[in-house]
Amino acid sequence: MFFASDNTSGVPAEIMAALTRANEGFARSYGADDIMARVTARLRALFDAPEAQVHLVATGTAANALALASLTPPWGAVFCHRHAHIAEDECGAPEFFTGGAKLVLIDGAHGRITPAALTEALATTGVSGVHGVQRGCLSLTNVTEAGTTYTAADIATLTAIAKSHGLPCHLDGARFANALVATGATPAEMTWKAGIDALSFGGTKNGLLGVEAVILFDPANSWELELRRKRGGHLFSKHRYLSAQMEAYLEDDLWLRLATHANAMGQRLAAGVASTEGAALTHPADANMVFANWAPGGHARLQSAGAVYYDLRPLPDGRETARMVASWNTTNDHVDRFLAALRP
Amino acid sequence: MFFASDNTSGVPAEIMAALTRANEGFARSYGADDIMARVTARLRALFDAPEAQVHLVATGTAANALALASLTPPWGAVFCHRHAHIAEDECGAPEFFTGGAKLVLIDGAHGRITPAALTEALATTGVSGVHGVQRGCLSLTNVTEAGTTYTAADIATLTAIAKSHGLPCHLDGARFANALVATGATPAEMTWKAGIDALSFGGTKNGLLGVEAVILFDPANSWELELRRKRGGHLFSKHRYLSAQMEAYLEDDLWLRLATHANAMGQRLAAGVASTEGAALTHPADANMVFANWAPGGHARLQSAGAVYYDLRPLPDGRETARMVASWNTTNDHVDRFLAALRP
Amino acid sequence: MFFASDNTSGVPAEIMAALTRANEGFARSYGADDIMARVTARLRALFDAPEAQVHLVATGTAANALALASLTPPWGAVFCHRHAHIAEDECGAPEFFTGGAKLVLIDGAHGRITPAALTEALATTGVSGVHGVQRGCLSLTNVTEAGTTYTAADIATLTAIAKSHGLPCHLDGARFANALVATGATPAEMTWKAGIDALSFGGTKNGLLGVEAVILFDPANSWELELRRKRGGHLFSKHRYLSAQMEAYLEDDLWLRLATHANAMGQRLAAGVASTEGAALTHPADANMVFANWAPGGHARLQSAGAVYYDLRPLPDGRETARMVASWNTTNDHVDRFLAALRP
Amino acid sequence: MFFASDNTSGVPAEIMAALTRANEGFARSYGADDIMARVTARLRALFDAPEAQVHLVATGTAANALALASLTPPWGAVFCHRHAHIAEDECGAPEFFTGGAKLVLIDGAHGRITPAALTEALATTGVSGVHGVQRGCLSLTNVTEAGTTYTAADIATLTAIAKSHGLPCHLDGARFANALVATGATPAEMTWKAGIDALSFGGTKNGLLGVEAVILFDPANSWELELRRKRGGHLFSKHRYLSAQMEAYLEDDLWLRLATHANAMGQRLAAGVASTEGAALTHPADANMVFANWAPGGHARLQSAGAVYYDLRPLPDGRETARMVASWNTTNDHVDRFLAALRP
Repeated sequence: MFFASDNTSGVPAEIMAALTRANEGFARSYGADDIMARVTARLRALFDAPEAQVHLVATGTAANALALASLTPPWGAVFCHRHAHIAEDECGAPEFFTGGAKLVLIDGAHGRITPAALTEALATTGVSGVHGVQRGCLSLTNVTEAGTTYTAADIATLTAIAKSHGLPCHLDGARFANALVATGATPAEMTWKAGIDALSFGGTKNGLLGVEAVILFDPANSWELELRRKRGGHLFSKHRYLSAQMEAYLEDDLWLRLATHANAMGQRLAAGVASTEGAALTHPADANMVFANWAPGGHARLQSAGAVYYDLRPLPDGRETARMVASWNTTNDHVDRFLAALRP
Repeated sequence: MFFASDNTSGVPAEIMAALTRANEGFARSYGADDIMARVTARLRALFDAPEAQVHLVATGTAANALALASLTPPWGAVFCHRHAHIAEDECGAPEFFTGGAKLVLIDGAHGRITPAALTEALATTGVSGVHGVQRGCLSLTNVTEAGTTYTAADIATLTAIAKSHGLPCHLDGARFANALVATGATPAEMTWKAGIDALSFGGTKNGLLGVEAVILFDPANSWELELRRKRGGHLFSKHRYLSAQMEAYLEDDLWLRLATHANAMGQRLAAGVASTEGAALTHPADANMVFANWAPGGHARLQSAGAVYYDLRPLPDGRETARMVASWNTTNDHVDRFLAALRP
Repeated sequence: MFFASDNTSGVPAEIMAALTRANEGFARSYGADDIMARVTARLRALFDAPEAQVHLVATGTAANALALASLTPPWGAVFCHRHAHIAEDECGAPEFFTGGAKLVLIDGAHGRITPAALTEALATTGVSGVHGVQRGCLSLTNVTEAGTTYTAADIATLTAIAKSHGLPCHLDGARFANALVATGATPAEMTWKAGIDALSFGGTKNGLLGVEAVILFDPANSWELELRRKRGGHLFSKHRYLSAQMEAYLEDDLWLRLATHANAMGQRLAAGVASTEGAALTHPADANMVFANWAPGGHARLQSAGAVYYDLRPLPDGRETARMVASWNTTNDHVDRFLAALRP
Repeated sequence: MFFASDNTSGVPAEIMAALTRANEGFARSYGADDIMARVTARLRALFDAPEAQVHLVATGTAANALALASLTPPWGAVFCHRHAHIAEDECGAPEFFTGGAKLVLIDGAHGRITPAALTEALATTGVSGVHGVQRGCLSLTNVTEAGTTYTAADIATLTAIAKSHGLPCHLDGARFANALVATGATPAEMTWKAGIDALSFGGTKNGLLGVEAVILFDPANSWELELRRKRGGHLFSKHRYLSAQMEAYLEDDLWLRLATHANAMGQRLAAGVASTEGAALTHPADANMVFANWAPGGHARLQSAGAVYYDLRPLPDGRETARMVASWNTTNDHVDRFLAALRP
């Protein structure tokens, strides 16, 4: 019953097989491998974006920080949700890679930025000339950190507001596949058609050992991103192993199949929690993440049953809170045993 | 005939098998996996350094830049050879991770810093109070970028000079195994017993997919290095795959066996070049790297025969120059075919 | 009727005279001038802090950013009020000088951080191990950006909370003299006796051409601050002119006399606004800054009468808002003409 | 006999008078003062550059570091002489302000870069794609750190080489007036007509309290430089005092008169040294700086006579070496007493 994070799972057999295949013989290093050429072509086709540039890295933090650094100057403000991964979970990587940009944190229920809140944040930032930081870029996360999703239309609405101030837009898609599956959007609809300029296209949480793609729909910054990647220590010499994972991930829609399963497990868990006496969902569970709260005692029962998940700060009234994440290899049995243990 | 770099090779079967084993089930993320605990214990034993702290990353640039950042402040000078990897091949990663430290480049034949040159560099740096950068740290490379080696005694001599100014010392050991094999030193003799405080313990060039260990013999900076690693985007969520590679690498002296083979192939190649008419070694070939020069026409013959290697800047007299690197899976046949093609 | 800022005023005759005296002959550069030795001695006596280290710079932004950089690492959180000068008015200088630290913004009425809000911010920052930024330091401002003050006891309460987490504490004293005059505290009571480790001791807004002192009550970071000052381009070669201003500022309590006058003018203005029909104070006016709001039409009357001040964002109900700052050379007549123009 | 540096001198009466005039009444802050508008107009006329942008700061290090940061990215190489002020005397300010650029040090006799050496440095930097830092900009110094000068034609030759690689060019003109006087060039000839894009136009060493102008002949980077200046803590609130100094400096060619005098004193000193038994010039003395060497014993005689100057590292043969700088208020008597003391 491992629900701590989708990154506690291993990888499916297809990925290991691809690594084994890629291991044959010699290959050019630093991204000049043959597989990478195919990965780029495939992602361009998938996103219907023939000019897009693709850069592989091994961690989501690297993908986000490099993408943001390519979009905003050191004196820029990055507009993001208060609980965005870039704000809370990257130990200041965006500040490091951008050379000291400032994250402007926007409140919003269930992990989502509202148009009104974004409008207000933009109206009060960068309004004092040289004295304050300038408006830099917008960064959205989908699936959000609260397990909810933005539809492609939601994203288009928010990016339009940002673009009315001339700002480029980034999407942290650590769980991009889960968001697509949850909302039914196509990759293009969720990204460049909705105003996204740079995407962190996640693989690790959805079944890879450690690969994320930074996809730049505007290729103008691509060479700069290459330099930043190298300078950041994120250019792999034996790059073929990243390429191979990504190629297998995209083959036969593996990535979407994995996310479909993870979401289904998340939904099963969410439905079960919602119907458990004394338990409730904290946020709508749109994809594979479930935030819940329950009467005191739940943690003790779950943990003695061996469930692994994040227990979060209790509510002021004493109710316990938790985050559970389902992954591509979560089973019905995992879910059902969790729910059984939760029951008072 | 791939001699472009040891990073164009794949990995041995033992490593793939370890990845497959590590893939089973769920594992704690971010370095809390069980394998990592064993890796740390094993490296401590291997280096006879029970307090040493071990941090895995995926690239040599990350290992070097993080290690240097833990040893020198932004206003520090990093003393290194003019052709050190950190100076020439990391796109300024040391400057980026340290917050703007200055590399003081020291000339020296065959990639080696001499005691006299280091003494002079130290005597002319950090001597103008607040006006100039301060002496920060020493960084050596073994095997050097010219394919030569320092003995443990050489290293001890240089670090003693640095330490007379209070400087900590870093060793870039991207080819640490090759250096040990070439010189016969033990891991401890080559490092902390010779005054090294932080080691980039290379794995990638010697048979891993992409793992290097930063080993801090003085554990005082370990927590800071953890934070820098995370902030640099170099903390892997599915860390078990790094741990597993490193564990297999150390198992049954695999790492030393791989380096022994690579060095033997390098020696075979070097001996062959030296005895080829019109060809000569540019630097002594102590390990698995061979720098050579030959009369014009060599490149054409080699490349039409399919040899892959770096052709470097011609000498002023027109002689062609090249760098060849042997790896764990170079064969006698590769070497011999190369030599055959080289022959006028 | 210049109420735009205390930095639109010139300097008193004593300061110009000191510059003229300092201009005689040759003097050692870079802070080794004789006057600086006297300034340090005098400030140590004034603050009853014989070990304190004093570093002069020319702008408040430099003083704050250097002080913060000496107190917090790049991965640290600087806890400050949402509207602190370091957050809103320095174009990201703290992020730049610290190497990318994150400002954690704390809400609080009238520019003041409450103990409860600080406690909550500390409880929710730096709690996720390596994943988030660490707690770095506390930065308070006195006089606050809302024109209110903290008493020495208020400061001691807040620093005690910070220090329970081991954090050093900075005080932005751009209007330190005004705060002392307003609260009756001594320099020592307001600073190190109240837990302040580093002070930006302002001079520019209170009658100097451009001098601020960074005072480190813990001298351990002093050499580092020297290096940061030089590296930041803030070490003056002809330093004597900074020293001379500061010496004259402290002579015969000039600094306190100037602030006493400015505060009196601020109080006169505040009282007048409060008793004007349709007008009200937005924040308590503790020192020389007055925040006010009034019925629509006030701006038009004031500006046509030649009043210069900041007109801020209107309130949601349409009332106009403004900031006025009195300075050492504001006169009763300035104030009274302003009030006359404000009257409907 | 103060020859330590031109920054140990005070300022002429015209400058103090200008400060006194500027002190009247209220003035807009942060560069919006009326005087600054006149300064910009005057510098544009002086340089025959109607589009040039002017930004005042208070130190030469700030001027250089801001100018360089506007010309080169963090991954850029700044080509400069090995002994340039930016390399040796700014404690890494260029690295700090650029976000970690790398200074590529070029050797050259008497402080001057030769076309051949620049060509070679450019040919060996930025040639390994993403792996090394990229070519960023050229920075020249005139008067050089060795007291020699470049003619306008020399500068044009060097910038043409840089521009053949697309590089922008910076001139550190801390002693720009001295260079103009020494070479007879006009401001335009020495700068934009010779390929200079950004100039640090020095004032402090030539008679101001502390003002330098960054002049951007290409105004495209001007807003960025404004932001960097503010973020670096180098935007003065009471900016009028900088403007006033600069205005007076330019009035009636004061700046050129001061430099003419300083150069004449330097020439007198150089001629005297050259004709002193046992003494010799180390570098040609083109302007107001004199580098000399003499038989052992010179330091003792000079210092017991009260001469103040820099005694530098002795030559290998034991000869003593020194740097003397004449300034606007050096007198014939100072020089002659120095020479008398030097005589064996």
